[in-house]
Amino acid sequence: MEKALQELLDVHAIQQLMVRYADRIDANDPEGAAACYTEDGIGEYWGTFRGRKEISDVLSVILSMFSATSHHLTNTSISLDGDQATAMSYVYAFHRMAGTDEPLHYWGRWVDRLERTDEGWLFAQREVVGIGSIEPESFQTGANSPISVHPGHPGRLQR
Amino acid sequence: MEKALQELLDVHAIQQLMVRYADRIDANDPEGAAACYTEDGIGEYWGTFRGRKEISDVLSVILSMFSATSHHLTNTSISLDGDQATAMSYVYAFHRMAGTDEPLHYWGRWVDRLERTDEGWLFAQREVVGIGSIEPESFQTGANSPISVHPGHPGRLQR
Amino acid sequence: MEKALQELLDVHAIQQLMVRYADRIDANDPEGAAACYTEDGIGEYWGTFRGRKEISDVLSVILSMFSATSHHLTNTSISLDGDQATAMSYVYAFHRMAGTDEPLHYWGRWVDRLERTDEGWLFAQREVVGIGSIEPESFQTGANSPISVHPGHPGRLQR
Repeated sequence: MEKALQELLDVHAIQQLMVRYADRIDANDPEGAAACYTEDGIGEYWGTFRGRKEISDVLSVILSMFSATSHHLTNTSISLDGDQATAMSYVYAFHRMAGTDEPLHYWGRWVDRLERTDEGWLFAQREVVGIGSIEPESFQTGANSPISVHPGHPGRLQR
Repeated sequence: MEKALQELLDVHAIQQLMVRYADRIDANDPEGAAACYTEDGIGEYWGTFRGRKEISDVLSVILSMFSATSHHLTNTSISLDGDQATAMSYVYAFHRMAGTDEPLHYWGRWVDRLERTDEGWLFAQREVVGIGSIEPESFQTGANSPISVHPGHPGRLQR
Repeated sequence: MEKALQELLDVHAIQQLMVRYADRIDANDPEGAAACYTEDGIGEYWGTFRGRKEISDVLSVILSMFSATSHHLTNTSISLDGDQATAMSYVYAFHRMAGTDEPLHYWGRWVDRLERTDEGWLFAQREVVGIGSIEPESFQTGANSPISVHPGHPGRLQR
């Protein structure tokens, strides 16, 4: 039972890391969000960003587009392997555009690789995978807008 | 404390079954979703479907209406009774219509009866209970559309 | 490990209190929701309400505005301190207006102070903090409408 308890504790700790990440994003704190990664962590935000500094910088650019964000985390699925883990979770995010306050809605997945460190569990890699979005007209920058590209649910089958 | 730990483990396992079901639905995998039921499980999807084959068939028809789905699971409430359990959870589901990609939003409850089996916890019965939906005009097929019938929150009081 | 297990049990019990509160709200049961508070609990609903009677009364007024509600709870973050706790959680709430059935969407935070009592964990204080809302035109009562005031994510940084 000790092993089962330890697994529950690890799952809970990883879920809390995910909650903390969303809290820091919604607090408009890109450095705090980047601190949820390992020192050399990799963030995939419509491009690849390496290390906390690059991740903080790209999050800063993204967050500057919005006057408010709200990232609602659900469906956490976590596979533990000692001091490593992989995870997928769902996110629905409400945003208000800076300037106009128009709403932007986003549905996606967070696909994570995690490591247990001296600072607790941290993201070694985190990728945002889009499922869909509803954007204000002012936001739409055509088919080249990376945020409008939605790869869809990981492993979605063609039938 | 052993009993309390076992209950936490059972709750976690049942939550993970619910997450897996949503994952299989959103992966457009009706057989994978039906495998979350016991062999003789009962699915209530605006009609009663018995056994994995019938459940897979009706899910296949439902899923063919959409080019993308995203089922966000929250508010899990689980009552354990040995190798049996009952549960209610909330779902908000984002959909894109096949063909037009118009969004369809759905709010509901999953009302479940569960059994512990050799394959782990599985749904013995799962009923979708609608709270509300916002549908594209093209979808609206009048008051007879079963998906548009919303019984509302289970036990909702009249005042 | 006993202490870690006890903490997991407390976290689970508090999450279940939050789920029960949402269930009672969505069941149009203001007395049942108020019973999630301590006898002298404080509810902050665009105003301060003290004790179960006042809380039930204000919830009754709020709920009378809607023909359906659905409060989707996510991102629970709980800090335990013996028989006390503090918590923040996210809520997205779908509503249908009484009379017109028009949809109203609300995004917020629940900021809680909790106490362990003979009835289990209860809210000693619960504050609704708005992040944003999308309201039907008929609902908009101008800048003075308290529900339209959105303080935003607690601790949100200016940059």
